[in-house]
Amino acid sequence: MEKQETQPKEWSQKSWETLSKVRKNSPLIQCITNFVSMDLAANTLLAAGASPAMLHSFDEIPDFTPQVAALYINVGTLTASTLPAMKSAAEIAVKNGKPWVFDPVAAGCSSFRLRACLDLLLLKPTVVRGNGSEIIALSRASFGDTKGADSVHESMDALEAAKSLALKTGAVVAVTGAVDIVTDGKQVIGARNGVQMLQKITATGCSVTALISAFVAVDPTHAFEATVAALSVFGIAGELGMQDAKGPASLRVNLIDSLYGLDQESILQHAKISSLS
Amino acid sequence: MEKQETQPKEWSQKSWETLSKVRKNSPLIQCITNFVSMDLAANTLLAAGASPAMLHSFDEIPDFTPQVAALYINVGTLTASTLPAMKSAAEIAVKNGKPWVFDPVAAGCSSFRLRACLDLLLLKPTVVRGNGSEIIALSRASFGDTKGADSVHESMDALEAAKSLALKTGAVVAVTGAVDIVTDGKQVIGARNGVQMLQKITATGCSVTALISAFVAVDPTHAFEATVAALSVFGIAGELGMQDAKGPASLRVNLIDSLYGLDQESILQHAKISSLS
Amino acid sequence: MEKQETQPKEWSQKSWETLSKVRKNSPLIQCITNFVSMDLAANTLLAAGASPAMLHSFDEIPDFTPQVAALYINVGTLTASTLPAMKSAAEIAVKNGKPWVFDPVAAGCSSFRLRACLDLLLLKPTVVRGNGSEIIALSRASFGDTKGADSVHESMDALEAAKSLALKTGAVVAVTGAVDIVTDGKQVIGARNGVQMLQKITATGCSVTALISAFVAVDPTHAFEATVAALSVFGIAGELGMQDAKGPASLRVNLIDSLYGLDQESILQHAKISSLS
Repeated sequence: MEKQETQPKEWSQKSWETLSKVRKNSPLIQCITNFVSMDLAANTLLAAGASPAMLHSFDEIPDFTPQVAALYINVGTLTASTLPAMKSAAEIAVKNGKPWVFDPVAAGCSSFRLRACLDLLLLKPTVVRGNGSEIIALSRASFGDTKGADSVHESMDALEAAKSLALKTGAVVAVTGAVDIVTDGKQVIGARNGVQMLQKITATGCSVTALISAFVAVDPTHAFEATVAALSVFGIAGELGMQDAKGPASLRVNLIDSLYGLDQESILQHAKISSLS
Repeated sequence: MEKQETQPKEWSQKSWETLSKVRKNSPLIQCITNFVSMDLAANTLLAAGASPAMLHSFDEIPDFTPQVAALYINVGTLTASTLPAMKSAAEIAVKNGKPWVFDPVAAGCSSFRLRACLDLLLLKPTVVRGNGSEIIALSRASFGDTKGADSVHESMDALEAAKSLALKTGAVVAVTGAVDIVTDGKQVIGARNGVQMLQKITATGCSVTALISAFVAVDPTHAFEATVAALSVFGIAGELGMQDAKGPASLRVNLIDSLYGLDQESILQHAKISSLS
Repeated sequence: MEKQETQPKEWSQKSWETLSKVRKNSPLIQCITNFVSMDLAANTLLAAGASPAMLHSFDEIPDFTPQVAALYINVGTLTASTLPAMKSAAEIAVKNGKPWVFDPVAAGCSSFRLRACLDLLLLKPTVVRGNGSEIIALSRASFGDTKGADSVHESMDALEAAKSLALKTGAVVAVTGAVDIVTDGKQVIGARNGVQMLQKITATGCSVTALISAFVAVDPTHAFEATVAALSVFGIAGELGMQDAKGPASLRVNLIDSLYGLDQESILQHAKISSLS
């Protein structure tokens, strides 16, 4: 990935352009994701203009995965029986030159899960998106310092872990939190969109990773920029959605509605993206 | 199924009467459906007055399926391990004289799935509901000409395929799209209710098939008419729900609220059902 | 569990204090629950201030379950392959002195499910929460007198069954319905909060049991009182949510928003808790 010096205004313009491209191309995104987030992740992709396919059967992957624009893998409700399909899909995606995006939910919550995540990392994800605790667990290859799917670390605490993980795996690494950070190991970009209350809705983390998949699908040679754009766009949809929200459930409704209706002006006006490196 | 010449006004009256019967009888509907749509399908059935049972365990089917008013099978997140329960439930339903309704989600997306759907078709579904691409894939028994769960064909493109599939299987076949069409191989009825944005909500297709199950459950000897009625009622709920919707997520909320509150006047006023044959 | 004579006003004060403690401590609740209710149960826990972990993998339980504040098990979409993880988690919870709460969804709908529920009862749940039909099926150890997940009995019809089940198992038993009743076999408390329309939303039963888990997690030595408090708080959230609801889907949104925003005054004003013994 070539890195260009992108100025703040260019970042917001890029965010808008990538969203527009998702709406225009409607990329087919295969999602192998957890049972909690399937609904919200699919609706996030649909609201952004993408075409989600929640297809996780081992037997269908050889036929199906080569046709997709991107693959999204999320280990939220991982079991021994669902892991082989994840690995197979990731391998086929890579072999067919398709980007794949990885959400290592609660990576550090058990040795089984940590090992599974480390195995998946060896299959060359294009992007890894986690919270601070997840990225630290993966980077240290150690488990225990976590609280289920919730983070006990701020995203900025995980900056060095994220850089190191990016260099080790070749993936773009995104850490979400109060500030969302994206790094390829050298460059570090921060996106400061979003609202605190998104953390009170289950599956918003999974859904933003799904959105990253769609953004990367339409601009696979610029996965870094596409990841930043997706994080900012999702955060802006949350900010606009917060205006009339009375709590987490109405915010969830508004988030999807806002994402669906997002226009260029809102993105240019609200995007808060800047270099942290 | 005897066919009577039903005039437009009679169709809307029938739609209202069948909904009323669902509300009165609260039929128990067993749903073996995908993990994405379980929530919306169950809430659709509840809002219509039916009693959903999302029960897919192979070990429970011999005890449970004989008690239900109708069975709904949906292959959205099919795997090799979930298929046997579907087949067993369909066989038991037929043996016990219970109607069963089939949603062949993404039938053409893999050879595994196509084969599974063709096998299920041999088990005599009462109704099959799909989009254009799904019905064409089943009718031609060929896979590949599809895009995940989304259709690349208009419903009217699938009219001949639907007729042929109905004649071959003995099922009522419904194809949803801009116009919803229902055929038994000879008669063809079109329902023009609904709004475009419903396609931006995951699981609306699955949910309308669930609703068909409830309508057929209370009028099993008129599965054709019940299917038309369910499609029109769901579409009207969508139209009314669209009035205050700000995007797909608020439409989803309004759709269920509207279905719950739907009265005779709204149905008689909005139903757009006519013969296409 | 020591029983104190608690007066009505004290009950509402206790309800507020327990909710406050959930918000303050944010207990980690492991949920092994059905695929229909995962989303709403997780969002209920988040709205109340708890931290849900929807983790059901057999391989992760030895590492994970000892860390949680409480375990929640729900058999809604039980299969032979998911049962071993439930049993293992319950055993580990008990061994580690963690409370666990059991929702025997549709206990009487098949002999397989009834047997599974009776086996789980032997593993010493702290609280069992069901509808009338479920509690009667468990108490009589017989199946058949049920209608899927819906109750054919009023909660009060199940009072004697609930008492007997509590005495036999040592669990606090809650039966929800028009009146929610809670008993330890001797003392019986009734909570009359909630609205009828909650029954038209799938997974509200599962979600109130999830909430019980969080309340018991922060006050494990008073599981009886915590259960009463959770039922009342959930019901009050429903009552407040009903004020602007246009149907079941907007009620569902409002329910979660209300639970999130619930303050002391609302609880003290609305709680309807009284002794029935």
